[in-house]
Amino acid sequence: MHENVQRMSKIVEEVAEDICDRMYEATGDIFLQDKWQREDHIGNDGGGGTTRIVRQGKYLESGAVNTSTIYGEVNPEFAKKLKGDSPEVQATGVSLIFHPRNPNVPTIHMNFRYIRQGDKDWFGGGADLTPYLPNQECFSYFHSFWKNKLDAFDPSFYPKMKEECDQYFYIPHRKEMRGIGGIFYDYLEVNEDSWKMVESLARGFLDSYFSILKKTMELPFTEEDRSFQLYRRGRYVEFNLLYDRGTLFGLKTNGRIESILASLPPEVRYEYMYTPEAGSPYEEMNTYYQPHNWVQ
Amino acid sequence: MHENVQRMSKIVEEVAEDICDRMYEATGDIFLQDKWQREDHIGNDGGGGTTRIVRQGKYLESGAVNTSTIYGEVNPEFAKKLKGDSPEVQATGVSLIFHPRNPNVPTIHMNFRYIRQGDKDWFGGGADLTPYLPNQECFSYFHSFWKNKLDAFDPSFYPKMKEECDQYFYIPHRKEMRGIGGIFYDYLEVNEDSWKMVESLARGFLDSYFSILKKTMELPFTEEDRSFQLYRRGRYVEFNLLYDRGTLFGLKTNGRIESILASLPPEVRYEYMYTPEAGSPYEEMNTYYQPHNWVQ
Repeated sequence: MHENVQRMSKIVEEVAEDICDRMYEATGDIFLQDKWQREDHIGNDGGGGTTRIVRQGKYLESGAVNTSTIYGEVNPEFAKKLKGDSPEVQATGVSLIFHPRNPNVPTIHMNFRYIRQGDKDWFGGGADLTPYLPNQECFSYFHSFWKNKLDAFDPSFYPKMKEECDQYFYIPHRKEMRGIGGIFYDYLEVNEDSWKMVESLARGFLDSYFSILKKTMELPFTEEDRSFQLYRRGRYVEFNLLYDRGTLFGLKTNGRIESILASLPPEVRYEYMYTPEAGSPYEEMNTYYQPHNWVQ
Repeated sequence: MHENVQRMSKIVEEVAEDICDRMYEATGDIFLQDKWQREDHIGNDGGGGTTRIVRQGKYLESGAVNTSTIYGEVNPEFAKKLKGDSPEVQATGVSLIFHPRNPNVPTIHMNFRYIRQGDKDWFGGGADLTPYLPNQECFSYFHSFWKNKLDAFDPSFYPKMKEECDQYFYIPHRKEMRGIGGIFYDYLEVNEDSWKMVESLARGFLDSYFSILKKTMELPFTEEDRSFQLYRRGRYVEFNLLYDRGTLFGLKTNGRIESILASLPPEVRYEYMYTPEAGSPYEEMNTYYQPHNWVQ
């Protein structure tokens, strides 16, 4: 394994453990651990990972914190879709998705990864929020948090990564975003500056969500709120199965299916021609699923 | 419009109306109609269609019978994925999906279509069953029905189309089929013999399902049965969004999103590492989601 893989792997494992500990303290929901191994495209040892899962918790209806470090050959056709032509790939990263039960609490997703293909390497990652009920204060907090984090490195980063996030989580066939965005970067050059930044983002991630969680987790909600949450979770499924690069990467590199698809919401509703009632909070939410400046 | 498009369009409209009438008689569930029009890739009139929908019916939790006749230019990149290089496409067809509320009643899907690209044309289509509880008698009936229909034209058709169906509805990342298959064909040559066959399959389709529906629609079921049905509906979503050619065709040809995605089940459940209890009907069902000879 390349030394960069080892360096990143250490960071993501520590981040994952820290997140599960702090989430357990805050919610009492227990993360169960599954360790798994994989074979590469040609049947050799291809690394593995750890999946930490909450199922039907009191606050997290489902939660998954996946870490993996994989290496070996990938399918040559898929190799071409990455950055170079080499089928030799090494990758390590953490990905997280929490689907809270209470529709007042936004769904959160993050991913921090390092990928090496032949002698090329890069970072990818980001964090994005998917709320179901209006809460402008929380939405602004989330974006301001990431702006502050990134401004410490370069004030040009947040606007760029915010725009990339808006684009990445856009669902073309719906002409709307999955949620309210956040930050996203890919093919980021690997150097000491970017190492510092990636480490700071990954280790700081939970703070972007924790105070939102604590402010919203005990708020009361109605059956209608829940119904809208389940409906919007349908968009989450559409995005993840039709467009998400991480899901595609996992399915194409012989990843562990149950870990990859642990991102899907536990309960979902589809409805033909759903239109929110005029003046309802759901109609208001629909206006937020478009690119929007959340930092004043 | 080419005369073949008109000829097929007349058949599929009659088939759709007949199905909705007979389903209403059997279930009392009312199909509401939406007519829609589309623009082609370059903004010209591109035809349209009719979507007939049951939402939260007594027996059909959701049901969609779509007909459409579209024409005009498609995106050149997508054109290459069809049969020829011409961006001029005309297509007409009917597609149907019923998601019954009662897990004893299988989900049914069918599609009969005629596609013309430049001066090439072909038929595609088929019918497949997705059951949730064991009922070998019904599964054999469904396959025997299609065998008998096809044997009237050529005894080599059923084995071939049954195998194509098993392959088409296979979900590679799950290593299992969406349901128990049926028949499937694509790129079928257009001549008087195939016209007769396609018309016979389309007009006969409802009989393949009707007696299964009537035998199972009043059977009692448990919460566990329902829970397994919702879980398996997750596979339906995975297949439709990751692999289904019809869904892809619709999304890539500026189709009407609400009609295309009306195939998705109204309520779905995802669960990490679900394993059915030993000796349960759900464990038995899992053995049926593999290619199997249902006609003795």
